[in-house]
Amino acid sequence: MPKQPLPPTVYLSAPDMVRLVQRKGLPECIAGVAARIEADFRRWPEFDKSPRLACHSDDGVIELMPIADARQFAFKYVNGHPRNTRDGLPTVMAFGVLADVATGAPRLLSELTLTTAIRTAAMSAVAARQLARRGSRRMALIGNGAQSEFQALAFRDLVGVRELRLFDTDPSATRKLLANLAGQGLAATVCTSVAEAVRGADIVTTVTADKTNATILTPDLIEPGMHLNAVGGDCPGKTELHRGVLERAAVFVEYEPQTRIEGDIQQMPADFEVTEFWQVLSGQRPGRASADQVTVFDSVGFALEDYSALCFMRDAAAELGIGDVIELVLQTDDPKDLFGALRQGQAPGRLDAPAAGAHALELAPAASTAVA
Amino acid sequence: MPKQPLPPTVYLSAPDMVRLVQRKGLPECIAGVAARIEADFRRWPEFDKSPRLACHSDDGVIELMPIADARQFAFKYVNGHPRNTRDGLPTVMAFGVLADVATGAPRLLSELTLTTAIRTAAMSAVAARQLARRGSRRMALIGNGAQSEFQALAFRDLVGVRELRLFDTDPSATRKLLANLAGQGLAATVCTSVAEAVRGADIVTTVTADKTNATILTPDLIEPGMHLNAVGGDCPGKTELHRGVLERAAVFVEYEPQTRIEGDIQQMPADFEVTEFWQVLSGQRPGRASADQVTVFDSVGFALEDYSALCFMRDAAAELGIGDVIELVLQTDDPKDLFGALRQGQAPGRLDAPAAGAHALELAPAASTAVA
Repeated sequence: MPKQPLPPTVYLSAPDMVRLVQRKGLPECIAGVAARIEADFRRWPEFDKSPRLACHSDDGVIELMPIADARQFAFKYVNGHPRNTRDGLPTVMAFGVLADVATGAPRLLSELTLTTAIRTAAMSAVAARQLARRGSRRMALIGNGAQSEFQALAFRDLVGVRELRLFDTDPSATRKLLANLAGQGLAATVCTSVAEAVRGADIVTTVTADKTNATILTPDLIEPGMHLNAVGGDCPGKTELHRGVLERAAVFVEYEPQTRIEGDIQQMPADFEVTEFWQVLSGQRPGRASADQVTVFDSVGFALEDYSALCFMRDAAAELGIGDVIELVLQTDDPKDLFGALRQGQAPGRLDAPAAGAHALELAPAASTAVA
Repeated sequence: MPKQPLPPTVYLSAPDMVRLVQRKGLPECIAGVAARIEADFRRWPEFDKSPRLACHSDDGVIELMPIADARQFAFKYVNGHPRNTRDGLPTVMAFGVLADVATGAPRLLSELTLTTAIRTAAMSAVAARQLARRGSRRMALIGNGAQSEFQALAFRDLVGVRELRLFDTDPSATRKLLANLAGQGLAATVCTSVAEAVRGADIVTTVTADKTNATILTPDLIEPGMHLNAVGGDCPGKTELHRGVLERAAVFVEYEPQTRIEGDIQQMPADFEVTEFWQVLSGQRPGRASADQVTVFDSVGFALEDYSALCFMRDAAAELGIGDVIELVLQTDDPKDLFGALRQGQAPGRLDAPAAGAHALELAPAASTAVA
C-alpha cells in the first residue's frame, strides 16, 4: 500500500516569525492582519465560536482559544503571567495551530507571541477606525509594555494617530517605548500621571498588565467624544475601567459571552447593553451615535483574531519561503495499522519480544484459528 | 540586560516517538503509562478538570483536552474522522503540550497519535484490573483497527488475558491484527459475528470507529460476570452499547460531566447512576459487587490520561536522549521589549521605514518631550 498522502504541517518558529515580519515589514504585517480580521469579522456568523478555556492559578492564566469555519479549525495557546517579567520572562507566550476541518490534519504550527501583539494592535485599530471620531490624531497610551509600540503603529497607520501621550508606572518602560518609536513619525509626550496623559486625547488606549481590578480610568478623566480602547482588562478579576466610565459610554465587544466573563464589563449586570463589533462592521447595528458620545472597545482578544493572523502568517511564510515541514503526525503505510508503524527501520521480531520480568508470558493454548 | 532564562521547549516528533517506543519497548511503554495513569487517578481531586472542547463537522470532530494540577498544564489536540481511512489518512491524529503552571512556559510539544493508542489501552487495562473478574483470560475484541493491537497487549500484560476472539466488519483489519500479534503469546480466534466473538468471553472490548449510534452489543449477548470495555463510543451520536446493556450493568466512567455528553451513557437519563473510576481506585466507592455482576467501563478518553502519558514520554525521552529543543517562544533581551526583538540581526533603521503607499506618513508636530 502506498505511503498515505498526509498533507504537510508547516512549522514557523519564533526566529522564523521575526524574519518574516522583518522581511514583510511590521507596518505591512499589521495592515495585512487588520485586513484579514476585518474580512473575517464581516463573515462572523460562519464561525463556530466558544469562550476560551481558561486555567487560572495564583500566578496567572493559561488559555486555549479554539474557533472554526467550515474549512479551517484554529486554536491558540496563550498564557498571562504579569509577574513573569520580574524573572526576566515574558508576560505572554503563545503559539497556535491551523488544521483542516475535513480531515483534522494540522497544517500550520506557529509561534504567536509576536503575532499576538500584531493581531491585538490590528484588532484595536480596526475597531477604532469604526468607533473613534473622524480626524482622531491624539492618543493616550497607558501602559508602555510589550504591546504598546504595536498599538502605536497600528493607530498611526490605520486610524491616523500622530501624537502619543505616554504613561506607565515604570518609567523605564516609557523610555523603551520612546527609543523604539524614534523616527516613526509620531510625536510623543511623557506624562507623569494617567490624568495628564488622557487630557485632550481623542483616543485612550489602556494596555496594563496587572491581574487586579484596577481603576486606571475614572469618570472624571473622560471627555466627551473620547474613544477608549481598553485592552488590558481581559481576565476575571482583571479590569482597567471604573464602572462609572462604562455606565456613560457605548460599549462594543468582540464576542459577548467571553467578554461578560473576562472584559471590563464583568463589573456590570448581565443585562448591561453591549454591541458585538461585527454587527457594526456589517451595518446591522450603529457604531458611534454622535461626536460627543464616549465609545469603549472592551477588548479581551478573541480566537477569530488569531485565526485571521494565522492565515495571514501562513500565506506570508509561503510567499517568502520561510518555515519548515515537521512530522507532528505519524505517517503509516496503512492508516488502520498504527501498530505496524513500530516496525519502521526495525529488525523483524524486535517488537515481538515482551519486556523482561513483569511482562513475561506463558503461551496460551491455540484456539481454532490461532495466531501462529 | 542578559538574555532571558526561558526554559527550553522539547519537541518529540512522530519519528522520535516511534524510536522512543522501539527502544523502550511497547510493553514497557504501556506498563509505564498505566502506572502513571493509576498514580494520577489516585490524586484526582488535585486536578483542574473540564469536559473537552469539541468542534463537530459532518466529517468528524476536532477536540482540545486541557487539564492542570498545581505544577503542570497539559492539553491534547485530537481529531476523529472515521472516513479518513478511505483516503489513506488516519482516523485519529493527535499532539499535545506540557507547560509550567507557574510561568505559562511550554516545556514539551509531542506527537500523540501513537501515544494516544498506548494511553487508551493502558487506561482500559487499569480499569479492567479493578473491574473485571479475577482470572479473566478470554477477551472479545470487536473492531480490529488502529487501536486494537494496543488493547490486546495491554490486557495481556496488565490483566492476564491470554485468548482473543476477534471480529471486524472489515476482514482485512482482522488479518492485519493477526499478523501484528503473531508470536505475542496470545491465542486468537477469528469470528464471523459479534455474537460468536462475545460468547464465553470474560472481557468484551469494543473499539469501533463509526460515528453513529450503533448497537454493537445487545442485551442478549451479555453473560453474567462479563466486563465490557466500551472504548469506541466517545462522541455525541457515537455509541456502541444498546441501552438495555447499560440498564443491567454497573457503569464506571472517567469524568462524569464529559461522559454524560460523549459516552454510551448519553443514551441514558441524566440521573442514571455511574461511578467515577478514580473513586474505585481510591477506595471511596465499590467496584465490582459480585462475580455475576456485569461491569461496564464507558471509556471516552479523558485529558488526565494524556497528562500522564505526556509525563511518561517526557521522562523517557530525557532518559534516552531523544527529541530536540525548539524555539516556539520568542527570546528577547528584555521581556517588556517585544518590539526590540524585531531588531535582531537587522540593519539599524530597517524597521523604521513604514511600508510604501497606504501607510506613508506625514510628520506630526513635535510635542514637549517629542521623540527625536
